[in-house]
Amino acid sequence: MKHLLDTRDLSLEEAVQVLDTADSMAEVGTREVKKLPALRGRTVVNLFFEDSTRTRISFETAEKRLSADVINFAAKGSSVSKGESLKDTAQTLEAINADAIVIRHPASGAPARLASSGWISSPVINAGDGTHAHPTQALLDAMTLRQHRSRLDGRPTQGSDLRGMRVALVGDVLHSRVARSNVWLLSLLGAHVTLVSPPTLLPVGIEDWPVEVRYSLDEAMAQELDAIMMLRIQRERMHAAFFPSSEEYARLWGLTPERLALLDSRGAETAILHPGPMNRGLEISSAAADSPRSLVLDQVTNGVSVRMSVLYHLMTGPQEQDRIPALQRTS
Amino acid sequence: MKHLLDTRDLSLEEAVQVLDTADSMAEVGTREVKKLPALRGRTVVNLFFEDSTRTRISFETAEKRLSADVINFAAKGSSVSKGESLKDTAQTLEAINADAIVIRHPASGAPARLASSGWISSPVINAGDGTHAHPTQALLDAMTLRQHRSRLDGRPTQGSDLRGMRVALVGDVLHSRVARSNVWLLSLLGAHVTLVSPPTLLPVGIEDWPVEVRYSLDEAMAQELDAIMMLRIQRERMHAAFFPSSEEYARLWGLTPERLALLDSRGAETAILHPGPMNRGLEISSAAADSPRSLVLDQVTNGVSVRMSVLYHLMTGPQEQDRIPALQRTS
Amino acid sequence: MKHLLDTRDLSLEEAVQVLDTADSMAEVGTREVKKLPALRGRTVVNLFFEDSTRTRISFETAEKRLSADVINFAAKGSSVSKGESLKDTAQTLEAINADAIVIRHPASGAPARLASSGWISSPVINAGDGTHAHPTQALLDAMTLRQHRSRLDGRPTQGSDLRGMRVALVGDVLHSRVARSNVWLLSLLGAHVTLVSPPTLLPVGIEDWPVEVRYSLDEAMAQELDAIMMLRIQRERMHAAFFPSSEEYARLWGLTPERLALLDSRGAETAILHPGPMNRGLEISSAAADSPRSLVLDQVTNGVSVRMSVLYHLMTGPQEQDRIPALQRTS
Repeated sequence: MKHLLDTRDLSLEEAVQVLDTADSMAEVGTREVKKLPALRGRTVVNLFFEDSTRTRISFETAEKRLSADVINFAAKGSSVSKGESLKDTAQTLEAINADAIVIRHPASGAPARLASSGWISSPVINAGDGTHAHPTQALLDAMTLRQHRSRLDGRPTQGSDLRGMRVALVGDVLHSRVARSNVWLLSLLGAHVTLVSPPTLLPVGIEDWPVEVRYSLDEAMAQELDAIMMLRIQRERMHAAFFPSSEEYARLWGLTPERLALLDSRGAETAILHPGPMNRGLEISSAAADSPRSLVLDQVTNGVSVRMSVLYHLMTGPQEQDRIPALQRTS
Repeated sequence: MKHLLDTRDLSLEEAVQVLDTADSMAEVGTREVKKLPALRGRTVVNLFFEDSTRTRISFETAEKRLSADVINFAAKGSSVSKGESLKDTAQTLEAINADAIVIRHPASGAPARLASSGWISSPVINAGDGTHAHPTQALLDAMTLRQHRSRLDGRPTQGSDLRGMRVALVGDVLHSRVARSNVWLLSLLGAHVTLVSPPTLLPVGIEDWPVEVRYSLDEAMAQELDAIMMLRIQRERMHAAFFPSSEEYARLWGLTPERLALLDSRGAETAILHPGPMNRGLEISSAAADSPRSLVLDQVTNGVSVRMSVLYHLMTGPQEQDRIPALQRTS
Repeated sequence: MKHLLDTRDLSLEEAVQVLDTADSMAEVGTREVKKLPALRGRTVVNLFFEDSTRTRISFETAEKRLSADVINFAAKGSSVSKGESLKDTAQTLEAINADAIVIRHPASGAPARLASSGWISSPVINAGDGTHAHPTQALLDAMTLRQHRSRLDGRPTQGSDLRGMRVALVGDVLHSRVARSNVWLLSLLGAHVTLVSPPTLLPVGIEDWPVEVRYSLDEAMAQELDAIMMLRIQRERMHAAFFPSSEEYARLWGLTPERLALLDSRGAETAILHPGPMNRGLEISSAAADSPRSLVLDQVTNGVSVRMSVLYHLMTGPQEQDRIPALQRTS
């Protein structure tokens, strides 16, 4: 694993290893001195061509917990956000000896272009590109699902996959890089994935994805589900033609108090996930967001651990990985 | 003291203790290596829903001098600046294990809501909310006044209050969180506070405040004063109806060269304070701002010390506080 | 050397010393732990009144490699960008005990005013002011030229000047602080400097500069040159009257593929420099920018080293400079 661009590139073994290390990293966040020396004196550049306070803060926290030097580069709106000069930007970062580049970009494929161009030699981590991929989000979701199952059946998280878990992803699949990255990763880990979406919000070519597709949330919820992952409605990416009114959307595709009550009445163990930020009252009701089923805050916590794990795997060699006492201690 | 939201919540003992520790912290700023290890490996989030370069830099400097990891979160104009999602923002910060949150918010009461909501468990420090409170500003003003008296009468600052000091706060009290926080803190510390303001720039309910009110600066200055604190005119918060022309304001309520000369001719020991940034030529003349009476730069220096002290008291336990050699050395 | 404001203020000995230390600093960037403890616990403020992602990142990287605490202060558009309050901003930074101030400002002379005002006692480093000076850019260019010659003739860089080198600066001299700083520094170091520019883009008073002036790039390139430094066209600073169309400019003053081919056909050792960001297709073709002659990325790498060197010389005393093992090791 040289870069992290897309969950599609991961082998099962790599995915489980990243999750296992993330479990170990989680312990660091509970210490008083929340720091490992692993990346001391290395420079990580957060190259954000698109605003994302949450993801940037999560990465920045992960980087600082690993003792890296962090350079934030908000390129939004500046001249560097145009095609050709991605090359010049990349080469500039290479020339200042950046040790890793975390990139968010509105254009699908920009991180892959950066990684495969030969412009830079350091690892590239995709922090979300266009509607294409958001691999660290999928990894934190997988970590959260693995913990959920562990709480139910008592088996340790370490080394385990998601075989047999049934997960529904609900909402705007068309515009969601989160959905794409989850489809590939959760399938790889053995979960059964159902996409639930209005037909107008499904991408072309979905028949080749390893998923079941349903057009009705109520129908999907008639089955047993281990988790429902609500996708964020990104109204700024939609044309009015695709999109019903907010009330209509909430009624048909939202996790309403009524649907929450249905889960409760059944005694289901269904967890609720959301990548945030939530549109409360639209794709998710506050009742659902704040219910005991909601693992939304676990997802945020796990985000830091997963990003620490990814940075750690990409930026250190096998020897160093043996050497880190924290990981030895916790594994 | 779990949070610092308002100087009204402080006991006399707490206030004096914060000031005493701030005196000790001041020594760190004069060292070559300006750093204490006190908060190493802890994360402080500066959550600024409103621009404030000076206050943010002062907090950031304080946090770095205590070796904390600093995350800046400028939320201005973003979707997080709306009501309900303060909750989601707060819970996100909790979920990444932030150890303290410094918040500036345009809405009075937002920091208190954050602290009392149960959304987060870490200390909340109010860095200014609406027209409500700005407690670290009042603490740095109190620190500066205590030093001023110490220079005059030779008594040590440590352990002392402001009993017997006469302080006038002049200008736009209505919109000033600085004025509010100072009224409560200076009174608590035993100072006699006079508010000097046009009637239209006084808030409703002022008759319950522990202050004397005057409508004429010349009248107020006819008395002996240990300090005059000029308030910043915030024209953006005012309606034209309340506000005379700039020339008129400067003539009636400004610390003009003439009023400065009057202090000098009397041989008064009156110090001049201003929270900054100054509108030179409006509420304060350059002659006054740059005169030997001006403690404006002491206020800035003390701002870092007071914020180090507050972070230190809120984020470390009594044991650690005994352990820090720097404080032992300097106390 | 108390401040770095302009290359005109440097003595030959100082310039060579800064370059020699920069050579030593370069080694730090190739280490796994890219850090020297030289500035631990000192605060460097990057005070940018004008956007400049590249220069800011280069300084920030240099500061962090020297273990300084970094405070970024982007003042663009804020009230502090006005004349008088530069004083208040400066005094504020002094009052928080900033140990050095890196300033970029749209007004020529602002850094010098800051340094000579008595407002502050700490070193001021000019990171570009108006059309006046950009001394660290000229120093990194000189470092790059010195390396270029060393590669050709095998003599060590340490201690050497640029005597006998012939360098052409091409393009918009009128608006270029990079050109001005290079003219003084390269001449001081003994290089022969030719300015190549349309007459409308040359400043008044150029007859007093230690340079040869040519109005035709083809004529200038008919001579042997060790380096051609292309200046960035800053269209935002130009009036239409001065400026031909882009096509016209590229044809007359740009380093086109044809001109590159000419150098190649001659077997010349001419290096190509550009301060970045490049307007590819305008003042420089991609063929030239990406050719083996291009030292553009060396310039970026050297930028970090030169800034480390400058910070180090201005912020540490002679004793400390003896003490740093890294420099002992590499010198």
